[in-house]
Amino acid sequence: MEHFDRTALYDLALALLSQGGLEREKAELVAELLIRTDEIGVSTHGISMVSYYLPELANGNMSRAGTCEVVSDRGLVQVWDGNYLPGHWVMKQALESCMERAADAGLAAMAIRRSHHIGCLSTLTRIAALKGFVCYIATSDPSGKWVAPFGGVEPLLTPNPWAIGYPATDHPVLIDTCASITTVSKVREHINSGTHFEHPWMLDAEGRATTDPNVVNDVPMGSILPVGGMDHGHKGFAMGLMVEMLTQALSGHGRVEAPKRWGANVYLQVMDPAAFGGTDAFLAQVDHLNAACRASKPIPGHGPVRIPGDRAARSREETSSSGIVLPEEVLTRIRACAAEAHLPFPASLAGSAARKAQA
Amino acid sequence: MEHFDRTALYDLALALLSQGGLEREKAELVAELLIRTDEIGVSTHGISMVSYYLPELANGNMSRAGTCEVVSDRGLVQVWDGNYLPGHWVMKQALESCMERAADAGLAAMAIRRSHHIGCLSTLTRIAALKGFVCYIATSDPSGKWVAPFGGVEPLLTPNPWAIGYPATDHPVLIDTCASITTVSKVREHINSGTHFEHPWMLDAEGRATTDPNVVNDVPMGSILPVGGMDHGHKGFAMGLMVEMLTQALSGHGRVEAPKRWGANVYLQVMDPAAFGGTDAFLAQVDHLNAACRASKPIPGHGPVRIPGDRAARSREETSSSGIVLPEEVLTRIRACAAEAHLPFPASLAGSAARKAQA
Repeated sequence: MEHFDRTALYDLALALLSQGGLEREKAELVAELLIRTDEIGVSTHGISMVSYYLPELANGNMSRAGTCEVVSDRGLVQVWDGNYLPGHWVMKQALESCMERAADAGLAAMAIRRSHHIGCLSTLTRIAALKGFVCYIATSDPSGKWVAPFGGVEPLLTPNPWAIGYPATDHPVLIDTCASITTVSKVREHINSGTHFEHPWMLDAEGRATTDPNVVNDVPMGSILPVGGMDHGHKGFAMGLMVEMLTQALSGHGRVEAPKRWGANVYLQVMDPAAFGGTDAFLAQVDHLNAACRASKPIPGHGPVRIPGDRAARSREETSSSGIVLPEEVLTRIRACAAEAHLPFPASLAGSAARKAQA
Repeated sequence: MEHFDRTALYDLALALLSQGGLEREKAELVAELLIRTDEIGVSTHGISMVSYYLPELANGNMSRAGTCEVVSDRGLVQVWDGNYLPGHWVMKQALESCMERAADAGLAAMAIRRSHHIGCLSTLTRIAALKGFVCYIATSDPSGKWVAPFGGVEPLLTPNPWAIGYPATDHPVLIDTCASITTVSKVREHINSGTHFEHPWMLDAEGRATTDPNVVNDVPMGSILPVGGMDHGHKGFAMGLMVEMLTQALSGHGRVEAPKRWGANVYLQVMDPAAFGGTDAFLAQVDHLNAACRASKPIPGHGPVRIPGDRAARSREETSSSGIVLPEEVLTRIRACAAEAHLPFPASLAGSAARKAQA
């Protein structure tokens, strides 16, 4: 496994995005958040994304410059139009706005239409959680159809990720999940590697559960099963409807407009525990439950119970001492981007850091 | 199947709760919301609950009179102490407060500690949805332990129901679900009727999935599996943690205090679509997606795709013309309550209504 220096990867991401035409200030922010995503171990959504963003910058589907438009502002409730700007940048602006207002009033919410992809949700909620806020983010793409309603066979919804981050004394709790059992990225990974899922997480166009990711290439198209699968997928479907409502109905833009380009609709909410029952009381409850879960008896043969965010905290520790590890598949794609842009690819870390990692 | 007049059932519920010692105004409200719950077809949480509330009134665990205490009020963010008053009444006050503030500012939120049981969440969210609001409610009981963290075998969480209701042009969408696959009520139903679940929705104390509801009576105790089960139960566990955080950490009261009496902690949020992208745009998106889902091709052998709230709307139509149907198990319990209180039990509907129902 090759380890890389965070600054070297950041510089590469920044150079690639800048050469791709993205305004400097935005390229810096996107590069920074992508590297933070690799640092928390979510390599599918880290520097890896640059290879998907570059073609979008080239064809103009991701805007290279400009600002968000404020569609409406009622103080603690806003609607923004992201103008298909890079979602990391849109979300950083949105977070700053909501955190400022929530610090004052206790909560603030925003619905965003027409952002580009916002990347890893935990990377974003973590920003607010580290400042003591509870932060909820949900996102959908009204141009995508991957998940069928429960009881149906036609894909009509996106996987509809949602995340909530909140403070704990040791490190933030980072819940980051979605309304379908698996994601489009995972489906693509399995198709590319010629493998099936371990469990029947897909639905073919005849309504049969299957492990085969290739059903999404069938005509008519198969789909990804909602959380709960064939057994209790009405629960995942309900969650999916909720995310579409929060992100599209509240922002006043969505499937009615039938957009054709890759985009992200977002619902963002920031809350300040200090304005509810107080920060100390909040932390006491969170720490108590987390500790009880971590100390509880695991299923025989399984490791200890983990709280969402534990793996991210551990990954940050490891990468800070040993550098960032990228999967071979990501390395291949980013090396190709660098070669095409005539940029050198960073050497992997040698010496103490790598030895430490191998120890 | 016997059908009953809604007024007769309301009068009975009111008389039982009043004889049980509940203040008149509160008894009226609780009775009304219980009957509305039967009208939307959720008979586990309708007049059925009276048989569980009467002993709580008798032993003083459900308060008979009094008001909620405002623990903190930051305008759009409040914390209330419910003083173990009947949850239907607490929630009606809370909804009124949040709807008034959300109509002005676009959103309002509240965390409530120490309410008694709040009943059917859809009955509550429907009140706000019918007035054009988006209404989210989550609830936990810090005295209960029924669901193990994913990967563990010790029950530490409650099923943690959450619901969201929002307007659509035909009738409100009423999502009402929880973080576990099934509920404590369903477990009790199966134990009482000596049946197993169709699917392995329980976990025994050794960490094996099972269809047997009786594992909750084992020592050590088995548990209810989180949404996603053995396959992807980390998603349900994450949802459960979120509900505990919203209801307990934000209200500043919960498992740290280790309460021993039946209670409900609540998180309530009301939003006005008019303050976001506008009511017309909101309805256009919701109606569009609902229509697409309902019109989509069902899995062979299955009925048409249903949107959450469709069954409730249909049940209301049926009960308004033919009366309310109560399951035999509920009838038995409520008949016993009436007998004990020396109250007549209403005759079932005869004549036109019942004939219509049988047609």
